[in-house]
Amino acid sequence: MNRRSIHSYTWIPKWSTKDGAYAAERAAAFGYGQLVVPIRDHDSIEPAAIAALCERAGVRPVATSPLQVDNDISSTDPEVHRRGVERHCAALALARDMGADRMGGILYSAFGKASKVPSDANFQAAADGLRIVAERAASYGMLLALEVVNRYESNLINTAEQAVRMVKLIGADNVRIHLDTFHMNIEENDLLGALELAMPHLGYFEIDQNHRGRLTEGSIDFAPMLRRLKAADYRGLIGVEAFSSAVSHPDITAGVASWRNLFDHGDDVARDGQLLLDQHGL
Amino acid sequence: MNRRSIHSYTWIPKWSTKDGAYAAERAAAFGYGQLVVPIRDHDSIEPAAIAALCERAGVRPVATSPLQVDNDISSTDPEVHRRGVERHCAALALARDMGADRMGGILYSAFGKASKVPSDANFQAAADGLRIVAERAASYGMLLALEVVNRYESNLINTAEQAVRMVKLIGADNVRIHLDTFHMNIEENDLLGALELAMPHLGYFEIDQNHRGRLTEGSIDFAPMLRRLKAADYRGLIGVEAFSSAVSHPDITAGVASWRNLFDHGDDVARDGQLLLDQHGL
Repeated sequence: MNRRSIHSYTWIPKWSTKDGAYAAERAAAFGYGQLVVPIRDHDSIEPAAIAALCERAGVRPVATSPLQVDNDISSTDPEVHRRGVERHCAALALARDMGADRMGGILYSAFGKASKVPSDANFQAAADGLRIVAERAASYGMLLALEVVNRYESNLINTAEQAVRMVKLIGADNVRIHLDTFHMNIEENDLLGALELAMPHLGYFEIDQNHRGRLTEGSIDFAPMLRRLKAADYRGLIGVEAFSSAVSHPDITAGVASWRNLFDHGDDVARDGQLLLDQHGL
Repeated sequence: MNRRSIHSYTWIPKWSTKDGAYAAERAAAFGYGQLVVPIRDHDSIEPAAIAALCERAGVRPVATSPLQVDNDISSTDPEVHRRGVERHCAALALARDMGADRMGGILYSAFGKASKVPSDANFQAAADGLRIVAERAASYGMLLALEVVNRYESNLINTAEQAVRMVKLIGADNVRIHLDTFHMNIEENDLLGALELAMPHLGYFEIDQNHRGRLTEGSIDFAPMLRRLKAADYRGLIGVEAFSSAVSHPDITAGVASWRNLFDHGDDVARDGQLLLDQHGL
C-alpha cells in the first residue's frame, strides 16, 4: 500500500465528482496513492462515482468529515451531541461506499473558532460519542484519525498531549492521531517532542508549511520529523496539504482563511512533497 | 526613555482602571517602562485615572484600538469606512489624554476572521482612512503602529511585505510597523527576513511565543531577531505579550482563542522577558 496522501484542494476549488477526477489523476501522476476527499455536504457526495474515479486513477480516497455547532459531538446538550454521532455515522457509510478505509479531520468538535474554554464534560462527551462512531467504523473495517488543530479551528484538541488523552479515553483499537505541521507549529512547545508523544497512536502525519503554501518556502523544517518517522519505521499515512487563494473556491478560502496566493498550481506543491518524501525514503 | 513594553493582559483578566493599576505596578517591578492599555469599550476608559495610575507606577501607556465589522476602515461602504475613521479619531483623543504617545494594533481592518479575500479597493480604503487618522495623530504628537497579524485575525495585512506596502501608500511620517512573533510564525516565509524587510519602518517589535504562553517554552527562537535589532541599533519599542486562560477574562480568552492554561501568573512571563532582553542588551 502506498502511504503517501495529498489533499484534493491542492488542485481543485472545492470537492465535486468532476473536479475530483482531475485531482485524483494529478495525485497519481506525482506518486500519491491516496487522495483526501472531504465529506461536507452529504447530498453532493456520490460514493459510487468517487470509488470509480479513484479506481480509474489508481488512488484510494481518504475521507474527512467536519462537524458544525448544531451537531457538535463535544456538546453537553444531548440533542446536539446525538446529531454529531449521527452525522459521523452517516459520513462513515459514505466513506466506506467510496472505498475509504479511514475517516479523519476534526472529528471531536465543531470546526471553527469556539467561544469558550471547553469543560471536562465536553471532553468526555466527545470521547463517549467517538466510542460509538469508532465501533461503527470497526464494523466497516475502518480507522478514525483525530486531527490535532490550532486554537482558531477548535478549542478541544490543540496539542498531541490532548489527543493522546482523548485516544486513551475512547479506548478503541481503531482510533489514531493525525498530526499536521501547520497546526503543530502554532500550538506545540516543540514539534519533534509532540511527534514523539503521539507516535504510538499516530495514523496520519501531514506536511503543511507554516503559511500552508509551497512546502519549499516557509519556516518549518520538516527534516527532523521525517527522519524520526523513518527511524521509527512508521507505517501510517504521510500526507501533503497546501492552500492558495488562486486555487480554492471562496467558501474554502474563507473556511481555512487562506487569503493569499501562495501557489498558482497544485502540481508545484505535489512535486515539492514528492521530492521531500523521496529524500527521506518515506 | 525605557523602550520595554508589556501587555497588561499578562496579569489582568480585562482592562479596568482598578486592575490596570496592579498591571502597571507589576510591569514597573520587572523593569518595563511601558504598559499596553487596550481601548475597546470607549465608555469604560477613564483617561485621567489611567494617566494617574501610570504616573504613579512610573510607566507610560501604549494604546491599542481594534475595529469591528460595522466600523471597518478597509470597507468600501462609505458609511462603515467613515465610522472606522471616527472611531480611531475618538480613540486617539482618549489615548492622548491617558498620556500615550502612540496607538497601535489592527488599525487597518476589523478584528476577527474575515469572510473573503480583500480587494485592492479594501487596501486603498484602509490607506485613505489611515492617512486621515495619521494626520490627527501627528497633531497630537503621536505615532500609529500597524500590527501585522495572522489570517484568523485579519485578511488585509498578514505579512511584513504587505505592511510595508501599506505604510508607503499612507505616506505619513508617523506611521510605523508593529511585528509580533506569534503572527510572524504563522505567516512569514522566514522570520528574520521579515524583520529585515520591515526594519526601516519598524516601531514595535513584540516577543510572543508560538502558543502565546511562557516565552521560555515554545518553538520560536527569538535570539536571531533580537541580535539583529541590537545590531541595527533599533530605537523603537520592544514588547512582551502572552495569554493564558488562567489569567484572562472569558471575553478576552474568546477574542484571542487562548483556551489553555499556559501560565498561572504574569510575573513568570515578565521575568522571562526581562531576562531575554537583558541578555541581548536591548
